[in-house]
Amino acid sequence: MSSPKSNKDQKSFSPFRERLYEIIFEADTPKGKLFDIVLLIFIVSSVIFVMLETVPSLSGYQHIFQTGEIVFTVFFTIEYITRLYTVHSPKKYATSFYGVVDFLSIIPTYIAIILPGAQSLMIIRSLRLLRVFRIFKLGAFMVEGEIIIKALKESVNKIMVFLFFIIIMVTIFGSTLYLVEGSHGNPGFNSIPKSVYWAIVTITTVGYGDISPQSPLGQFLASIIMILGYAVIAVPTGIVSSEFNKGYKKRKAKKFTSQVCSFCLKEGHSIDASFCKFCGGNLRMTEQKSE
Amino acid sequence: MSSPKSNKDQKSFSPFRERLYEIIFEADTPKGKLFDIVLLIFIVSSVIFVMLETVPSLSGYQHIFQTGEIVFTVFFTIEYITRLYTVHSPKKYATSFYGVVDFLSIIPTYIAIILPGAQSLMIIRSLRLLRVFRIFKLGAFMVEGEIIIKALKESVNKIMVFLFFIIIMVTIFGSTLYLVEGSHGNPGFNSIPKSVYWAIVTITTVGYGDISPQSPLGQFLASIIMILGYAVIAVPTGIVSSEFNKGYKKRKAKKFTSQVCSFCLKEGHSIDASFCKFCGGNLRMTEQKSE
Amino acid sequence: MSSPKSNKDQKSFSPFRERLYEIIFEADTPKGKLFDIVLLIFIVSSVIFVMLETVPSLSGYQHIFQTGEIVFTVFFTIEYITRLYTVHSPKKYATSFYGVVDFLSIIPTYIAIILPGAQSLMIIRSLRLLRVFRIFKLGAFMVEGEIIIKALKESVNKIMVFLFFIIIMVTIFGSTLYLVEGSHGNPGFNSIPKSVYWAIVTITTVGYGDISPQSPLGQFLASIIMILGYAVIAVPTGIVSSEFNKGYKKRKAKKFTSQVCSFCLKEGHSIDASFCKFCGGNLRMTEQKSE
Amino acid sequence: MSSPKSNKDQKSFSPFRERLYEIIFEADTPKGKLFDIVLLIFIVSSVIFVMLETVPSLSGYQHIFQTGEIVFTVFFTIEYITRLYTVHSPKKYATSFYGVVDFLSIIPTYIAIILPGAQSLMIIRSLRLLRVFRIFKLGAFMVEGEIIIKALKESVNKIMVFLFFIIIMVTIFGSTLYLVEGSHGNPGFNSIPKSVYWAIVTITTVGYGDISPQSPLGQFLASIIMILGYAVIAVPTGIVSSEFNKGYKKRKAKKFTSQVCSFCLKEGHSIDASFCKFCGGNLRMTEQKSE
Repeated sequence: MSSPKSNKDQKSFSPFRERLYEIIFEADTPKGKLFDIVLLIFIVSSVIFVMLETVPSLSGYQHIFQTGEIVFTVFFTIEYITRLYTVHSPKKYATSFYGVVDFLSIIPTYIAIILPGAQSLMIIRSLRLLRVFRIFKLGAFMVEGEIIIKALKESVNKIMVFLFFIIIMVTIFGSTLYLVEGSHGNPGFNSIPKSVYWAIVTITTVGYGDISPQSPLGQFLASIIMILGYAVIAVPTGIVSSEFNKGYKKRKAKKFTSQVCSFCLKEGHSIDASFCKFCGGNLRMTEQKSE
Repeated sequence: MSSPKSNKDQKSFSPFRERLYEIIFEADTPKGKLFDIVLLIFIVSSVIFVMLETVPSLSGYQHIFQTGEIVFTVFFTIEYITRLYTVHSPKKYATSFYGVVDFLSIIPTYIAIILPGAQSLMIIRSLRLLRVFRIFKLGAFMVEGEIIIKALKESVNKIMVFLFFIIIMVTIFGSTLYLVEGSHGNPGFNSIPKSVYWAIVTITTVGYGDISPQSPLGQFLASIIMILGYAVIAVPTGIVSSEFNKGYKKRKAKKFTSQVCSFCLKEGHSIDASFCKFCGGNLRMTEQKSE
Repeated sequence: MSSPKSNKDQKSFSPFRERLYEIIFEADTPKGKLFDIVLLIFIVSSVIFVMLETVPSLSGYQHIFQTGEIVFTVFFTIEYITRLYTVHSPKKYATSFYGVVDFLSIIPTYIAIILPGAQSLMIIRSLRLLRVFRIFKLGAFMVEGEIIIKALKESVNKIMVFLFFIIIMVTIFGSTLYLVEGSHGNPGFNSIPKSVYWAIVTITTVGYGDISPQSPLGQFLASIIMILGYAVIAVPTGIVSSEFNKGYKKRKAKKFTSQVCSFCLKEGHSIDASFCKFCGGNLRMTEQKSE
Repeated sequence: MSSPKSNKDQKSFSPFRERLYEIIFEADTPKGKLFDIVLLIFIVSSVIFVMLETVPSLSGYQHIFQTGEIVFTVFFTIEYITRLYTVHSPKKYATSFYGVVDFLSIIPTYIAIILPGAQSLMIIRSLRLLRVFRIFKLGAFMVEGEIIIKALKESVNKIMVFLFFIIIMVTIFGSTLYLVEGSHGNPGFNSIPKSVYWAIVTITTVGYGDISPQSPLGQFLASIIMILGYAVIAVPTGIVSSEFNKGYKKRKAKKFTSQVCSFCLKEGHSIDASFCKFCGGNLRMTEQKSE
């Protein structure tokens, strides 16, 4: 199935390289699917290893994590080199988003071997999780993901305006509470940035409680920002809901309004119509004409 | 009313067994309804007993709870045996979801009698609450529940993609805050799993406050994840809202396609159609006939 | 304007009583509006007085609050008696929702005079705030309020099913965390009811933080319930959004599909149409015929 | 491009003043755009300076902040005077919303120079952030912002009713928990206003946790208000979602009414119309002409 496509794309490549490309980059063949599943397990396992490595109570198992890390790094290195080898334009791949993520997945381990002090770099390995997206991009979730991304893209401008409005609001509320609570000696409001942080914690309804107003006036103002936040959360939800509805209608609309009757020139026929619902003309004839 | 059905299903059964089946498994007869109400009261009471049994200040009333537990267990055991007796295929029932839940509702008490140390098993009894679903399945809430379940089923793929995105986001944010806050000696961020837990608490806007960033950079990054979470909550809501809207429109659409063409007897015409879209027959003539 | 109506309803009443009825129960006349505004101010002031009375730092002003309370109670008593006097069926009024609320607004003060120990009864006076609804019922907000109430009524069954599902979920999650955290000696999870309370605090994203899981397994399970709650909040929002959309479409539909062309008998004309959009027939003639 | 407009508006003004007006108040010319960008940077920087000035750990850099403040104030003063000079009606500008904000942006610094004790006035400078709106008003975000503002304006009445309902609910719940928890000696519920504050913190799902019910009855009542709040948040979201949907449909509807009748030149025909709904003219003839 994919041979005509690969013929066109990779004419000059050896069949072995072509087969490798299909396995690593595509998910249509059984071997390609198997590779994706193995890769998924390796990525998730390696990220779990990175996470468990930092748990103090598991510090006795460091040698297991280190051995695992070497196995993962070797595997990812081989994979990275194979990708570079099989791809048509290695430069383009290496500078692409996934190319950079693939590179960042292996390099911290090598740096840590050379420079033993660069432990904090190890955290970059958690970016490996981003590689999972590549596997899903090829998978069944792609359509659903695309619908979500499209709806978000359409609403990104509206959400930006909304976020900008939120930033202005938390700055003004934060400054006000700095004045009100700071003067009462509340240590949580001893600077405007900290007060703004509190306002963000409050308006997003997270509410840690490590900083909270103590004076009656401060609590009254906080109540206002809470109720405002409560009403305001409706805005992004409304925007995105509306986009999802639009997206659904467009998909539905495409199904229904494609055909024009050749007799009365009217549109709006449903997909299962044989005859024009306005003049009774035969729509099948219209189809034969237009095709 | 149910006799033709039961004739077909349970031909060889005695009338007594048939009547018992109707009472226990169905809710059409007055006795069946009464049984459901009694069962509902027993289930809810027994779960309340399980809960109160664990309250330290009520430890003086343990004998009441234990007596009650014996009564409930005897009742549920008789019910379980009767279900096994009346049902056509006892094996199929015993391995079904409700069969397993029914079994788990009675077995912990018997185990606790034999093995006095198996107290923790008693908690399994709270699963009894799941049995309430069976009663509602037969009841009036079924239609509403089905609409909700259908809307959720339709959106489950989109929500899975969304949850997967959230997991990636909290892992990366958690790792980052482990680096930022952990290095400042914040005990709440002393491992990546704990930091990821904090990120989940934050992005879902729960915000316990037992773990919270203390450094300015940590608070700045936390602000970003909060505002992101605030905007991102719009996505599942938008998905589900859109599904509910779709479901409503489909039900409404069905309403409008009530007309049947008198020539080809096909349904599915839109409200403004003059001619049948399948055979070209005049729909107005159909209307005049039917009115 | 209201005379024909009151003639029909209160034939035997004196004009003075009729006028009083109009002022107290209706808001069409200038005096009626003035009465509503005065009543609104009295209700809100009296509730603010009830609230401030309990503030420890204002205990020096008790005599002001007590004097105010006597003024409010005398006013509300006169109002209550006048309502009883002017209304056609005093019994029906006294047992109606607003009749009971009006009575509860005045009786605690009298009881407190007779029984000096009945201080806690005074709190009932905060129910006075419910009386505000009566004023708005007559006011401009009525239409908006009705749209909201209608949307909520339509979705109440679905929301009940949803809440029932939430209760089952928090019970099972609460029991599980009681087992997991209680056995680790976490004092916040020392009984199932308390653990269920924690689960409610968590799933609703309130997250006080007075009770929070400390063991890794507990935090893992808590993460699941949080993400579940985050996805699940979409359900009631989706339900209500969908109802508001429906309501809007119904109102729109009523505006547009009322007229049938007398020539081609087609419906679906917009409100500003003079001629049938299908056959060109004069719609104004149709209107004259039908009226 | 803007010359015909300014000719009409500012006939008597010198070309220099006209050019200044275009640069400062408009964003069509390259110089106007540059001015807006510079102004945006100055506003944001000055607000960041105001915020950082209050951070205790940065108190060693006070001289930098003070120097910066003088630069910003001089710049904003020149800008304010230029606006007064170029605008047609200085009085109207000075009393407009943006005129007042512009004035409040510069005056606190001058007051602080004269009265060294008026430090708290300096916070007013954070209002400068409001000036950013003016720049965006001229920018690309205007359309998106207008859609949001329109949707909010349409739903403001419904949201007011909703907020009013929330206020009544938190007052009654707050009073009840004052009775229940206050009598158990919980210091967080020692007055009704504080209890109402707690109810707001809870119903908006902020949940600081500085005040939380301790008695079983208090926790039970709190659970009810939480679940209520959880269901109730659906209302504003539903309202706003519905408004966004409406807005989208209206814009879509406008799209479809693009046809102009060739006889009466009126617009507003629906997509399936054959004849003009205003004059009865044949719309198909119009279509053939225009195509």
